[in-house]
Amino acid sequence: MREDTRASIKEAAVRLFHKNGFHGTSVRDIAKEARVNISLISYYFGGKRALFELLVTDFFEGYIVTIEQSIHLDNNDAAAAIESVFWNVLQYQQSCHLLARMVHREMTLDSVLVREVMSTYLQKEKYFLESLLKKGMAEGNFKRQPLDLLIVQVRNMMILPFTSPQYLRELFQLLPSDANFMLRYMKHVTVWLKTLLGMSANQKEPVGLSLF
Amino acid sequence: MREDTRASIKEAAVRLFHKNGFHGTSVRDIAKEARVNISLISYYFGGKRALFELLVTDFFEGYIVTIEQSIHLDNNDAAAAIESVFWNVLQYQQSCHLLARMVHREMTLDSVLVREVMSTYLQKEKYFLESLLKKGMAEGNFKRQPLDLLIVQVRNMMILPFTSPQYLRELFQLLPSDANFMLRYMKHVTVWLKTLLGMSANQKEPVGLSLF
Repeated sequence: MREDTRASIKEAAVRLFHKNGFHGTSVRDIAKEARVNISLISYYFGGKRALFELLVTDFFEGYIVTIEQSIHLDNNDAAAAIESVFWNVLQYQQSCHLLARMVHREMTLDSVLVREVMSTYLQKEKYFLESLLKKGMAEGNFKRQPLDLLIVQVRNMMILPFTSPQYLRELFQLLPSDANFMLRYMKHVTVWLKTLLGMSANQKEPVGLSLF
Repeated sequence: MREDTRASIKEAAVRLFHKNGFHGTSVRDIAKEARVNISLISYYFGGKRALFELLVTDFFEGYIVTIEQSIHLDNNDAAAAIESVFWNVLQYQQSCHLLARMVHREMTLDSVLVREVMSTYLQKEKYFLESLLKKGMAEGNFKRQPLDLLIVQVRNMMILPFTSPQYLRELFQLLPSDANFMLRYMKHVTVWLKTLLGMSANQKEPVGLSLF
């Protein structure tokens, strides 16, 4: 029962923060949406700001675990591992797409929370991506190239469907929450990764297109 | 004098909206930052919301004109034109980087303003990019591929330095407002465009690398 209440409050908060933003959402709105007494939000979470921060860190905990596990599942080949990271991170974000959208928007602000998330979770994400790309280059399968902008671009493609969902919907009638969209997006990503990383001749063809 | 006052108010508003967001900025803050009487903001702009909307549409007017002119300057070759669009749009955003950042953050919200911008300016941007990519494919210089996700990715790379400036700064010590950053970024983009579009054999090599 206690867990049910906590879960309903969190779900209600995600729906409202996603729709109206942090400042546009009051503790009263959340209590009403979750159909709980307003005092329970302070009791369980310590208030609106703390609840919001918990949602953000919850998201990144799952995000980093997803990356780490995807790498360990395919630890013999950087090309397969990077596709696996992409696919699993996309699936993870899709499983909580309102939260993902809320979090990525928050990350465009310049706040203490954002700096903390960057120095912990995004630092880990950078480490994992950098290790994978370096491994692929050392194996002779990826073209050698400067790592920083490559990592930035890879990360950006991994979160794109959840940073601009309205743009995709309004201009292209694409729905990131849709399973078909995700399959098409992953196919685009696979071709893009293959060309960008310039897979060398000793790499078996077609890299990772096995999924499709 | 009147133009000076209008310009100071707009500049002050950009600095504050960029830093504290729309809700975190009051008309009083703007008046104080611009060192003008608070009543002038209503007089010239009709209030905070109208001033904010004017800044957003100002940004997109310049953005679309930049794209349109870049295409007309290079109307013989889609590959050269798309690089020219990229370079000029990056330069344009850099010339007003606080405003660019403020606008791109606003575009992650689901508001009436955002829907209006999408149905006008971003519809035009889509039209220009689509025309260019189709032209390159018709000329036999670009690999034929589905257009929608390609346009989304191209657009995304064009605004990336201004959608995640803190991420670039905190994790990679990269400063999008720096001229050297922009040259490096454009070099990365040029290689990426070349591989992504899969320039065909009848395209002269190295495409557009002439800039560097």
